[in-house]
Amino acid sequence: MARVKISSVPTIRRLPSYLHIIEAAQKEGKDFISGTVIAEELELEPIQVRKDLAITGISGKPRIGFPVAELLDAITKFLDWHHTHRAILVGAGNLGTALAGYAEFNRHGMSILAAFDSDSRKQGTRINGVEVFPLEKIGEKVKELEIELAVLTVPSPYAQETTEVLLAAGIKAIWNFTNIKLKVPKGIIVQKEDLSSGYAVLSVKIARNRN
Amino acid sequence: MARVKISSVPTIRRLPSYLHIIEAAQKEGKDFISGTVIAEELELEPIQVRKDLAITGISGKPRIGFPVAELLDAITKFLDWHHTHRAILVGAGNLGTALAGYAEFNRHGMSILAAFDSDSRKQGTRINGVEVFPLEKIGEKVKELEIELAVLTVPSPYAQETTEVLLAAGIKAIWNFTNIKLKVPKGIIVQKEDLSSGYAVLSVKIARNRN
Repeated sequence: MARVKISSVPTIRRLPSYLHIIEAAQKEGKDFISGTVIAEELELEPIQVRKDLAITGISGKPRIGFPVAELLDAITKFLDWHHTHRAILVGAGNLGTALAGYAEFNRHGMSILAAFDSDSRKQGTRINGVEVFPLEKIGEKVKELEIELAVLTVPSPYAQETTEVLLAAGIKAIWNFTNIKLKVPKGIIVQKEDLSSGYAVLSVKIARNRN
Repeated sequence: MARVKISSVPTIRRLPSYLHIIEAAQKEGKDFISGTVIAEELELEPIQVRKDLAITGISGKPRIGFPVAELLDAITKFLDWHHTHRAILVGAGNLGTALAGYAEFNRHGMSILAAFDSDSRKQGTRINGVEVFPLEKIGEKVKELEIELAVLTVPSPYAQETTEVLLAAGIKAIWNFTNIKLKVPKGIIVQKEDLSSGYAVLSVKIARNRN
C-alpha cells in the first residue's frame, strides 16, 4: 500500500473553523453566507477563503455568497466527518483524559470506545465516561469494538513499543500526541500532533508585536 | 496598535519539526545536513524544505547542505525562542495539567510560573510543579511575575469572562485552547489552538486510505 500523501494540508486544517462559522450562520437561519464575512471572522483574505472552499466543490455566487446547507454538507463529507471513526485512547494520563472529554471530537464522528493504561490503579475506572483497560487487552478490544484509530497519549519513552502493540492488533491509523517520530510500515497512517507548532506561531506574533 | 498579521503560518508551524531533526544531527556530531535528508525525515518535498528554511535567512550549499549550528541558531532566533516567555496557565484541569508538564515548552523558552483555577480544592496545590492560585490573584501575580502570556484552558463557557480578567491584568498575548473565538481589542494577540485541525487532516487521510 502506498503512503497516504495529501496536498493542501493548510486548507484542510482551516476547514473545521469554516464549519464552525457556517454552522453558526445556519443556527441564525441564514441560507447564504458571504466569503467576505467568513474571511473577516477568521482574519483571512477573501481570496484565501474562496480557494479553500473550492476544495469542497462548492463555489459562491456573486453578491449572494455560499449556500449554507450545501456547504456544510460538502465540508463534512470532504472531511469524512459523516462517518464514525471508532477509536481507542492509549495512555489515560492528563492529556488522554482531556481528549476523552473533548466534545468536538464526538460531534465530528470520533467515538472513543475504550482507554488503556499500564497503571493498575487506573484500570477499571472511567475517564470522562470511557473505561480504562490494561494494555494487554488492546488486541482483544480492537477486534471486539472494530477499532480503526488509536489516539496515542502515552509518555514519549513508551511511544514506539506501544505502537508495536497497536500494529500487532491491526490498527491502521494512529494520532500521535507524543514527541516521538513513530516507525511504522508503509500504509499505516500516523498524524503527529505537535503543540510546539502553535507555540511557534504565537512566539513569532509576540516577537513582532514587541518590535 | 495594528493587528499582528504574519504570513507563512504553515512554514512557521513546520519550523519546530526542523529544529528537532537538526538538533538530532548536531547530537550525532554532524556539521552539515542536507535538505533532502530533512525532506525525507519529514515526508516533505525537498523544494518545500528549501523554501521553508529560506525564511530564516540561511541557504544550503550544493552537495554539502545546511550548516547545522548556524541553522539551529537562525531558527531559534526566528521563532523568538532565545527569549523567555513568562506565562501563566488559567484553568488547572486535565488539559492545563498536561500542558504544565509539557517539557518541550520549557525547552523553548516558555516558563509557566503560576496556574489559576476557580476550584478551591485545587488552590494551594501544585500541578506538575506549578502552584495553583484563585482567579482573584491573576492581577497581582501578572504584575509580580512580569507575565506576558496566558495559556487559557478553562471550560469554554468561561472563556470570554476569564479573558476580560486577563485583559484587565494587562496580558497582551493569549494562547486559547477553548472552542470560543475570544473578543479582544486590537493589538492583543490571540493564538487559537484547535485540536479539530489535526483531526481533520487525519480523517481525510483515513478516508483516502479506505478508498
